[in-house]
Amino acid sequence: MSTFAIPRSVEWHETHVTILNQQKLPSVTEYLDLHTLEDVHDAIVTLKVRGAPAIGITAAYGLALAASRYETESVDEFQRRLKQDRDYLASARPTAVNLFWALDRLVAAAKSAASVNEAKTTLVHEAIRIQIEDEDVCRRIGEHALSLFHRGDRIMTICNAGSIATARYGTALAPFYLAKEKGIELSVYALETRPVLQGARLTAWELMQAGVDVTLITDNMAAQTIKAKNINAIIVGADRIAQNGDTANKIGTFGLALLAQSFGIPFYVAAPLSTIDLATKTGTDIPIEERHPDEVTHLNGVRIAPEGVNVYNPAFDVTPNELITAIITEKGIVYGDYETELPSLVAKEEHHETA
Amino acid sequence: MSTFAIPRSVEWHETHVTILNQQKLPSVTEYLDLHTLEDVHDAIVTLKVRGAPAIGITAAYGLALAASRYETESVDEFQRRLKQDRDYLASARPTAVNLFWALDRLVAAAKSAASVNEAKTTLVHEAIRIQIEDEDVCRRIGEHALSLFHRGDRIMTICNAGSIATARYGTALAPFYLAKEKGIELSVYALETRPVLQGARLTAWELMQAGVDVTLITDNMAAQTIKAKNINAIIVGADRIAQNGDTANKIGTFGLALLAQSFGIPFYVAAPLSTIDLATKTGTDIPIEERHPDEVTHLNGVRIAPEGVNVYNPAFDVTPNELITAIITEKGIVYGDYETELPSLVAKEEHHETA
Repeated sequence: MSTFAIPRSVEWHETHVTILNQQKLPSVTEYLDLHTLEDVHDAIVTLKVRGAPAIGITAAYGLALAASRYETESVDEFQRRLKQDRDYLASARPTAVNLFWALDRLVAAAKSAASVNEAKTTLVHEAIRIQIEDEDVCRRIGEHALSLFHRGDRIMTICNAGSIATARYGTALAPFYLAKEKGIELSVYALETRPVLQGARLTAWELMQAGVDVTLITDNMAAQTIKAKNINAIIVGADRIAQNGDTANKIGTFGLALLAQSFGIPFYVAAPLSTIDLATKTGTDIPIEERHPDEVTHLNGVRIAPEGVNVYNPAFDVTPNELITAIITEKGIVYGDYETELPSLVAKEEHHETA
Repeated sequence: MSTFAIPRSVEWHETHVTILNQQKLPSVTEYLDLHTLEDVHDAIVTLKVRGAPAIGITAAYGLALAASRYETESVDEFQRRLKQDRDYLASARPTAVNLFWALDRLVAAAKSAASVNEAKTTLVHEAIRIQIEDEDVCRRIGEHALSLFHRGDRIMTICNAGSIATARYGTALAPFYLAKEKGIELSVYALETRPVLQGARLTAWELMQAGVDVTLITDNMAAQTIKAKNINAIIVGADRIAQNGDTANKIGTFGLALLAQSFGIPFYVAAPLSTIDLATKTGTDIPIEERHPDEVTHLNGVRIAPEGVNVYNPAFDVTPNELITAIITEKGIVYGDYETELPSLVAKEEHHETA
């Protein structure tokens, strides 16, 4: 048996939720058992769990866990307390759309329960279903992505669109886990991804856990690495995809897409359909969030730049659609013509769900 | 009077040499008085002084200082000890061409001295001359470079091709100091320059000392910054320029040159003629030095990546000549056709020197 395994971010254990403490990686691999609603709230607030799907799954389990302990036979009283706890968990990260989505899905699932017991069971099943569905979505993204790679390929990625950000497999990293399962050799070149170093701390770590060949570089080594190591393709995740395919993702993604263009290699975005926001027409509608200067001027609490220096710290950038060779979703691969193809893919998905 | 000043790397004080301790920047601004040959040797070994010209000047002063204390009236004995001390200082950094060049220039200058006293005076004068010449070269590079910029321009740079790496002014940073002297507003965007962070630690610091407007970004923010801040041009220094203009410089330079091409903005290399190596025909003749993985996996002694991760750590990259809009030297600006223009510029310089 292999000693390698794809790390998981969240696991359900009936009496508690176990999460990987991503704050302590890569130096310490620590799993935390969350026993109360407060534990779950705190884990989300303090970024011990991160990645939109992983946060949603954790919160869903947290709500199901809390509700399993409500001591009442009144369905009305149950629903009232559920709504209260839903609001409490939602407040842990008010900008995380996936968090609200998962919590509301649980609340909706329990709505028609005839008894408190039925409601409790429904909540646990719905939370498990969210995790299973996410794992399935990631696996399908990975299979589509893997169809674009060849044995021996060297692929570059940025940030952590990985297993520990999702239920399992991740998005941009999913093809590497599937390749490993199938015995197909691929090499990954991971950018460390300043300022928060998700590439160095998380991507390098989780790929190593699964026995995937990974080499770490600093962000400014991308061009030299593409040239010297004959990189075949770049694959990244996405925070949000506009209707026309413009993609918001971790700062540095746009620069990588320009390098891919310069070197004539494909640039892929791997993301679930839920990332496509048809209400956002183009990337210019996405405001660039700026984060605290300390992220740039400090590392591990140690100052690395002069006191009082001006800093520009955009959290992400927007890659224009013309630089994206293909967008890889769980429903298939879209090559260009995003403005028409993306809405049609989303519509098909919605039709399928309501069918 | 302004409280701003361009920091200097080295100063001669008859009884000692004062250097800026670049190892402690930016948190502590410390000047060290070097009183002995051993002090100077140690300062070079431990990278307290860095930058090819600054190292050469420091070593020259160190040799002149040591020789000023030789207690002999015999010119032969003097020359013998001078040679010994030259070899000792040269061993401080065996790859620093500029170090040998400066030391050998002192030894040659003292060769024809008729007395020990004359030799001692000659050595001090020659060392001072090296510093004055370097400051003059940098100032002229800065004047040429400044002619390419306009009031209000926003310019991007990488690493530290600055005052503290040279006698004064630096190369790529020289135009910003001259602009400040002339009251011309320019804004600098400095890449932090992983893995060793010369941009964050040194460039940001020295420009702030001189009151130049500088904004620090991480290396992966370059593309977004060029777009969002309407960067007008990129200017960088050079470690070595091949006959055809291919330029070896700090890792990340090549990627910046590709971004400049993508955005249609000029990409300038600022460097003294001494950086042009006509024996190197093209960039493919320059082997890429790889440095220790710890530079990537650690920061300030703290591990930031998993134990045992593979690392690729090229110290520099080579920017092909077709991506370089112009090479700015102390003798003028060369626009393309480097294969013909660079040798002719170097030949003119050599003719001038022997005339």
